[in-house]
Amino acid sequence: MQRRANMRSHEPRSSSSCAACKFLKRKCTPKCQFAPYFRSEEPKKFAKVHKVFGASNVSKILNEVPEDQRDDTVNSLVYEAEVRLRDPIYGCIGAIASLHQKMVELQYDLILARTRLASYVDLYLDDRGSTMMAPIEIPEANRFHF
Amino acid sequence: MQRRANMRSHEPRSSSSCAACKFLKRKCTPKCQFAPYFRSEEPKKFAKVHKVFGASNVSKILNEVPEDQRDDTVNSLVYEAEVRLRDPIYGCIGAIASLHQKMVELQYDLILARTRLASYVDLYLDDRGSTMMAPIEIPEANRFHF
Repeated sequence: MQRRANMRSHEPRSSSSCAACKFLKRKCTPKCQFAPYFRSEEPKKFAKVHKVFGASNVSKILNEVPEDQRDDTVNSLVYEAEVRLRDPIYGCIGAIASLHQKMVELQYDLILARTRLASYVDLYLDDRGSTMMAPIEIPEANRFHF
Repeated sequence: MQRRANMRSHEPRSSSSCAACKFLKRKCTPKCQFAPYFRSEEPKKFAKVHKVFGASNVSKILNEVPEDQRDDTVNSLVYEAEVRLRDPIYGCIGAIASLHQKMVELQYDLILARTRLASYVDLYLDDRGSTMMAPIEIPEANRFHF
């Protein structure tokens, strides 16, 4: 009873099957595992994860994670499925590779800017023979090891 | 015959089933779609993609992409499956979010370094009243819009 009461807030109206059950052409019960995350008004959401992961694998993954993290899990599965459907060859790996490349470029630009900054600080201080502006510490660049 | 001849270079020895057919407990034929990418000596590779995507979905995805890109497709599916098995809640989205956060930090550091550099260049040139070093152009930071 407690479980049913907890689930009620997420449930679609009892008169309406969830998007997963509609897609799978099966009866949607009050204990339906998919109902809280695949509402009847979002049919494409389930269709996408079904096409990439399959209903059975989505169910297994949901069973593996705590209930309060299933919303995040479904969202990440839907996002991953959308990316795979757009890019069947690379999927999310394409996005990761692109971000990684952008990071390498930023790291290079940052090192260049800091090196030039250090040169100008030295020049400026040498020239004035003073410390009107305190020397700037050049910290290690934020490195990401892929 | 041409198709068989093309596939032969990728085929495992005829005496050995590929990892997918071993896993699925079925006969591995010379036309097996999985054999070129899931060799018998790498059983875990297929087990991972099967657990996350299912054999049927992997097969459908492979059918959608050109033959010369199926190696990359399998590699990205295996990587994605490994990440999802390590992190069932966020999968690759966790890696993307982490990279994105790192990029935002790098962009901030780069803007800071370039702003400081511009200040020192101005100070140095004002002080000397010369252009011993050419002014440094501050280009737009590499922005990534997520």
